[in-house]
Amino acid sequence: MDIAILIYDRFTALDAVGPYEVLSRLPGAKVTFVAERAEPKRTDTAQLALLADATIDELTHPDILLVPGGPGQAALMDDGPVHRWLRTADQTSTWTASVCTGSLILAAAGLLTGRRATSNWQAIDELRALGADATPERVVFDGKLATSAGVTAGIDMALELAAKIAGLQVAQAIQLGLEYDPQPPFDSGSPRTAPAEIVEAVRAYSRFAEQPA
Amino acid sequence: MDIAILIYDRFTALDAVGPYEVLSRLPGAKVTFVAERAEPKRTDTAQLALLADATIDELTHPDILLVPGGPGQAALMDDGPVHRWLRTADQTSTWTASVCTGSLILAAAGLLTGRRATSNWQAIDELRALGADATPERVVFDGKLATSAGVTAGIDMALELAAKIAGLQVAQAIQLGLEYDPQPPFDSGSPRTAPAEIVEAVRAYSRFAEQPA
Repeated sequence: MDIAILIYDRFTALDAVGPYEVLSRLPGAKVTFVAERAEPKRTDTAQLALLADATIDELTHPDILLVPGGPGQAALMDDGPVHRWLRTADQTSTWTASVCTGSLILAAAGLLTGRRATSNWQAIDELRALGADATPERVVFDGKLATSAGVTAGIDMALELAAKIAGLQVAQAIQLGLEYDPQPPFDSGSPRTAPAEIVEAVRAYSRFAEQPA
Repeated sequence: MDIAILIYDRFTALDAVGPYEVLSRLPGAKVTFVAERAEPKRTDTAQLALLADATIDELTHPDILLVPGGPGQAALMDDGPVHRWLRTADQTSTWTASVCTGSLILAAAGLLTGRRATSNWQAIDELRALGADATPERVVFDGKLATSAGVTAGIDMALELAAKIAGLQVAQAIQLGLEYDPQPPFDSGSPRTAPAEIVEAVRAYSRFAEQPA
């Protein structure tokens, strides 16, 4: 089972590594980090680089296609090699998935028109403007399309995906292996639960603040 | 604020990337992934490589020192350059931290003797045998020592650390930025909540099964 995770300049590491850690533990899984060029890709903080082990042209028909988000998403909204690869890969994939603003890239490539999908909480309006039936849920499945909200939501999505692919017990074993029994010390992980002044501060300092809604 | 995250052959990616994603967002944070040699380090699945941007000798006095776990931990239990670096760095660090079996490496280097600490749920006995006051909690603080349980526990630890370093509001803003409002689809993330047969299966297939308790 070939799993292609797209990486690009200024992606968010955890968007990619969360689902990788889950999906790579599926029986028979082979994860490949791919990019336009097979080279190290530096994340949004510039403080970490992950190696792309193959080019997108070397893996055109993965069983699972996953697109992480991050500030670099903004540079991948125009048609080009990545969009063409996404459209080709989606034609034969068993699952097409995204984390955070990765769904904006899928939408810009024309793959989410009329489909139920989610994204980072600050990107829901933009996702809707790109033609998706956007909903601010944490994980959304629509047929073979699996999208998730910001960053850490990719872990929850990947566990659901693992159960659909390999059954409940395998997914539970993976969850235990990752000791995924989350105990966040604060209740500030969603705009619905975070203190209002925190939501406003994050919104004000975000790159989304400069974009038209 | 210099943050050194040690990586090595066959570490678990999410152990390192979870805390990185939190701590790199602290004001003034500069995270550096370090290793004995500045080269790509391949994870336990062999399906991903992260770049070590500096050698351990280039960063001997980080403010925060973090050691992830993973199967490769077993090759770092003997005294040598990594242990010497850990002891040196710990002398001046503000915080010394670990995720999962990273605490076994700290213990083997002599840094956890008599200290309250945690580890992967399957490594608690080994941690105790190495001289720590081992406890199967998710996150344990003992003075400047911060240890966490398996893999994903590093995210919870890092958020607590973020609050201690930069205050509650900064930590809450980071949590919201990462949309860390976990909704695991199953309740199988701890040996206390997972179905008994899942716990036994994970135990049987684990590398810990072959080790003396």
